[in-house]
Amino acid sequence: MKVKLGTFPLVYPIPIVLAGAMVAGKPNYATLGDCGVMGIKPPLVYVSLNETHYTTQGILEHSTYSVNFPTTEMLAVTDYCGIVSGRDIDKAMLFESFYGELETAPMIAQCPVNLECRVVKEFTIQHRHIFIGEVVQAYVEATYLIEKEGQRGIADMTQLDPIIYALDNRYYRIGEAIGMGYQEGKIFKHTM
Amino acid sequence: MKVKLGTFPLVYPIPIVLAGAMVAGKPNYATLGDCGVMGIKPPLVYVSLNETHYTTQGILEHSTYSVNFPTTEMLAVTDYCGIVSGRDIDKAMLFESFYGELETAPMIAQCPVNLECRVVKEFTIQHRHIFIGEVVQAYVEATYLIEKEGQRGIADMTQLDPIIYALDNRYYRIGEAIGMGYQEGKIFKHTM
Repeated sequence: MKVKLGTFPLVYPIPIVLAGAMVAGKPNYATLGDCGVMGIKPPLVYVSLNETHYTTQGILEHSTYSVNFPTTEMLAVTDYCGIVSGRDIDKAMLFESFYGELETAPMIAQCPVNLECRVVKEFTIQHRHIFIGEVVQAYVEATYLIEKEGQRGIADMTQLDPIIYALDNRYYRIGEAIGMGYQEGKIFKHTM
Repeated sequence: MKVKLGTFPLVYPIPIVLAGAMVAGKPNYATLGDCGVMGIKPPLVYVSLNETHYTTQGILEHSTYSVNFPTTEMLAVTDYCGIVSGRDIDKAMLFESFYGELETAPMIAQCPVNLECRVVKEFTIQHRHIFIGEVVQAYVEATYLIEKEGQRGIADMTQLDPIIYALDNRYYRIGEAIGMGYQEGKIFKHTM
């Protein structure tokens, strides 16, 4: 039996990322789960921030941002960056920052994956500021890469050990691999 | 050492959902991972589809859609709905559909969670059609709900057993809970 839970955006699982921007000349990082893929070619990734967020200022100023993926070992500092504002705390002190092609999208060295993004579209909807960025470069810690069919790719997402969030306000680990995309349904196809 | 992987939208983990719409008078369901939260109050959820997708037609016609969350037991049929088009296969036959307040957003009874959405903003960006919907109702299978602090909520996301995807083209299970949102960072706070 289905129960109505009301007007609640119960999407799961949610990726936990640190969005990076230059604010008032310094790197700042905001923890958020409102991030996802909007396209592959071109590679589009969005982040949604409150209009009043300190990070929002920086993205509006430079039209660049980064998306950084912490590991579960970084859970405390990641959660912390979602509790405190860059207006009160210098978050640049919490991480080692590095820069790529855009120069105004600070990235976190400790995160195994970083996406450097240039804003291609932005708008406000209610009190949210949505930034859609084109990924100009993806950075991955070398130890997580393997050669697959002549291309470099990610070995296994479990090794990247991401922090997963859900709207029950809990963080989770990733579990084991259970299948391949565009493959599992083929058996089904033959029975139709 | 960080390695450049090129212009790749390496967001992870990705939620695997079945987006539902009425197309040519029948329910149709498309598997996608380009879905996420854009806001809580109001509750905003987006889906990104190719302009040519059969489902896109239906959402454009009715300005309504649903987001349905399959379990790992539904992996084969879910993957299948990402391989075949509703133009060729009657996907309504694969599931039991039900309707809520909007009447034109078919939902999948077998999925433990369904979001019924009304489009509040839509745009195209390159070859993608992005629909941002306000959740008018969230439906949850009663067995997954508990009373928490006088409010009904989700017991534990591991019970919902979602299908997780990553851009290594693998599906994963969810792992165990590792902490609480806005709590884990408090220890960190006191050390600053």
